[in-house]
Amino acid sequence: MSQIFHYHHLFEFAKRVFVKIGCNEEDATLATKVLLSADLRGIDSHGIARLSGYVRLWEAKRVNAIPNITIIRETPSTATVDGDSGLGLVVAPKAMQIAIDKANKVGTGWVSVQNSNHFGIAGYHAMMALEHDMIGISMTNASALVAPTFSIERLLGTNPICVAIPAGKQPAFVADLATTTAANGKLEILQRKNQEAPFGWIQDKNGGTTSDTHALKNGGALLPLGGDREHGSHKGYALGAIVDIFSAILSGANYGPWVPPFPVYIPMPDNMPGKGLGHFFGAMRIDAFRAATDFKLHMDQWITRFRSSKTIQGYDKVLIPGDPERESEEKRKKNGIPLLNVVVDDLLSLSEKLGVEFMVHSS
Amino acid sequence: MSQIFHYHHLFEFAKRVFVKIGCNEEDATLATKVLLSADLRGIDSHGIARLSGYVRLWEAKRVNAIPNITIIRETPSTATVDGDSGLGLVVAPKAMQIAIDKANKVGTGWVSVQNSNHFGIAGYHAMMALEHDMIGISMTNASALVAPTFSIERLLGTNPICVAIPAGKQPAFVADLATTTAANGKLEILQRKNQEAPFGWIQDKNGGTTSDTHALKNGGALLPLGGDREHGSHKGYALGAIVDIFSAILSGANYGPWVPPFPVYIPMPDNMPGKGLGHFFGAMRIDAFRAATDFKLHMDQWITRFRSSKTIQGYDKVLIPGDPERESEEKRKKNGIPLLNVVVDDLLSLSEKLGVEFMVHSS
Repeated sequence: MSQIFHYHHLFEFAKRVFVKIGCNEEDATLATKVLLSADLRGIDSHGIARLSGYVRLWEAKRVNAIPNITIIRETPSTATVDGDSGLGLVVAPKAMQIAIDKANKVGTGWVSVQNSNHFGIAGYHAMMALEHDMIGISMTNASALVAPTFSIERLLGTNPICVAIPAGKQPAFVADLATTTAANGKLEILQRKNQEAPFGWIQDKNGGTTSDTHALKNGGALLPLGGDREHGSHKGYALGAIVDIFSAILSGANYGPWVPPFPVYIPMPDNMPGKGLGHFFGAMRIDAFRAATDFKLHMDQWITRFRSSKTIQGYDKVLIPGDPERESEEKRKKNGIPLLNVVVDDLLSLSEKLGVEFMVHSS
Repeated sequence: MSQIFHYHHLFEFAKRVFVKIGCNEEDATLATKVLLSADLRGIDSHGIARLSGYVRLWEAKRVNAIPNITIIRETPSTATVDGDSGLGLVVAPKAMQIAIDKANKVGTGWVSVQNSNHFGIAGYHAMMALEHDMIGISMTNASALVAPTFSIERLLGTNPICVAIPAGKQPAFVADLATTTAANGKLEILQRKNQEAPFGWIQDKNGGTTSDTHALKNGGALLPLGGDREHGSHKGYALGAIVDIFSAILSGANYGPWVPPFPVYIPMPDNMPGKGLGHFFGAMRIDAFRAATDFKLHMDQWITRFRSSKTIQGYDKVLIPGDPERESEEKRKKNGIPLLNVVVDDLLSLSEKLGVEFMVHSS
C-alpha cells in the first residue's frame, strides 16, 4: 500500500517540478526544502503529497513562479510583506528571514505577510530562528473548514501556530499545532480507511456532534480545539481567530471565509477583502532578555524535569513538544520516506504531464 | 447567598487595605483597579475574593509593598524587568507600560518579568494597549495544578494568555483564556455546590478521567485544553508550556513545579531555580503594519461577519471573544457586583484584622 523513497530522490524530483513551472534554481531549492521538511517530520498531509496541488494553483494562474517579494511598510521591529502571489513555500522563509534580521538589530522582529499562498508546515519557518539563538514563531491562515463555537458555518481555517525555542544539550522545544481538535490530515487518513472519528473532532451540517468522517463534505465542519463549549472550544476558536487576524488583517490578506481555497476546483469566494492568504512571523533574540547560556541551562532543566515526570500507567514517557517530529526526521532521513500508492500515482501523473522524470523504487 | 456592592464601595475598601499594608497611594489605586477589573468582568475567582490572600502573602513577607521595579536588561524592542517581589497587580501594569513605550518607539515592545506575584486577570494588562491603537498580549505562569499529557504529576499552572485587538465601531476583540479545559475558578464553583465536573476537566491521582471535583485535593490534576490526547490535550499542554517559558525562563523567574503557590499554607517548593513568578507582555503598534483606519475597518468586517454567522439551533448568536466579559462589565458597573456571603465574611474578617472599615449593604 506504500513505497519507500530516499529523501534525495524526492528532492530532485520536486525541485525539477518547481523549475519546470518557472521558479529559478534558488527558489526551487528553497520550496523543495520547505515542502519535504513535512515528509521528514511525519506530517505527510503537508509534504510532497501536495506537490501536484501547488502545480494546479500555478496552472490556474494563482501562483506566480517569479514573485517580486517586497516590504510595503516597516519600523525597526516590524515589516509588512507583499508576497506577489508567490509560492508560500518561498515567500514564508524569506519573510521569516526579515524577522530574524530585525531581531538581530533591535531584539525582536515581527512580519505580517499578504498576497501569499500555502506555506507548507509552520514548523520549518519558526525553526529557522533556532540556529540564531532566537525563539521563532510562525502562523498562517488557511481556507475555512472550522466552525466557531455555536456556529454551523465554516469561518476559520485550521490556522496553525508554531513556537520553536532553543535549548542547550537537549533538543529544541518545537510546538507546531493546528488550532483545531484534530488536524485535517488526520481526518483524511480516517476517511481513506473508512473509519469513524472520535466525537469532538467534527460536527454535521446542523452543528450536531458526529463520528462520520465524511460529514465535512456534506456541509459539516471541523471543531476548534476543545471540541465543544463545555470543554473549551471557545478557546480554540479564539486562538484560530488570533492567527487569522495577525496573519491577514494586520497584513491586508483575505481572512475568515474569504481565504482562497487550496484545491483549484473550489470556486474563489465572492467579494474578497484582501490579497491572497496571510502569514505572521516572529523572532526574539534570547540574549535580548537574558544571557543565552543561562536561558539554555534552564531550558535543559525544564525539559529534563518534564520528560522524567511520572507517567500514567501504560504510557512510556511524557513527551516534549517536537519529540515525535524529531524522531520521525531522524528515522526517515536514514530509512527513507514512505509514500502511499495513491500519492505515488499522483506524482507519476505529474511526471508525465510536465515531462519531469520520476523513477519509482519499490521496496 | 450573595450580596450586591457598588464598585466604588469595594474600590475604597480594597485601596485602603493596600495602603494599610504599606503601598503608596498611587500603587494602592493601581492594584485596586487591576484587582476589581476581574469582579467587573465576571471573573469572580480573580477579584476581591483574593484580597485576603494577597494580604497573607504580605504577612508571610512574600510580597514587598514598596518594590523598586527595575529594568535589568533591554534592547530597543525588549526589556527584562525585576519586580522586586512587588504585588503582581502593580508590577504587571508597569511592565506592560514599558512594552507600550517601546512599541511607540520601534513598532513593538516585549517584556519578560521575574520576581513578581499573581497579577490578577491577564485581560487588564493586555487591554492597556487598546487606547494606544496597539495589540496587547499578556501571559503569566502560576503554581502547578495541571498535568502534561500522559503524566500524573502537576507541572504547569493554568497559565493564561490574553490577546486584545482594537476594532473600529465594534468593541475590541479580547481573548483571555487559561490553557486548560476549564479555569480553576469554574471548578471551585462546582466544588462549593458539591456538583460533578464534566469528564475532560480533571484526572485523579492515577491519571484516570474523573468527574469528582475534589480529585484535585487528593493528588489529581487539572487537564490541559483538549482534555485527552485524542482530543488534542498535547496542544493545551504545549500552550501552557510556552507561557511558562516566555514568562519565566526568559526572565529568570521560577517555572514548572517550582512556581511559588498563592495560598501561604502550601509550603514553598525545594530548590527553586529562579525568583518569584514570571509574566510576559507584548505591545504591537497597528500602524507599524498597516494604517490603523484600514485595520479597524477590516476588524469591524471580521467581527460583523462572525457575529452574524448562522447558529446551531438553540443558540442565539456566535460570540466574539470578549463579549461576555464586556457585557458583565456594563451590567456590574450599573447594577453593582454580587459577592458570595463567604467572600463578604472574609472581607469582614480582613476589615477587623487590619482596622479598615468595610460597610456591608444588604440587598
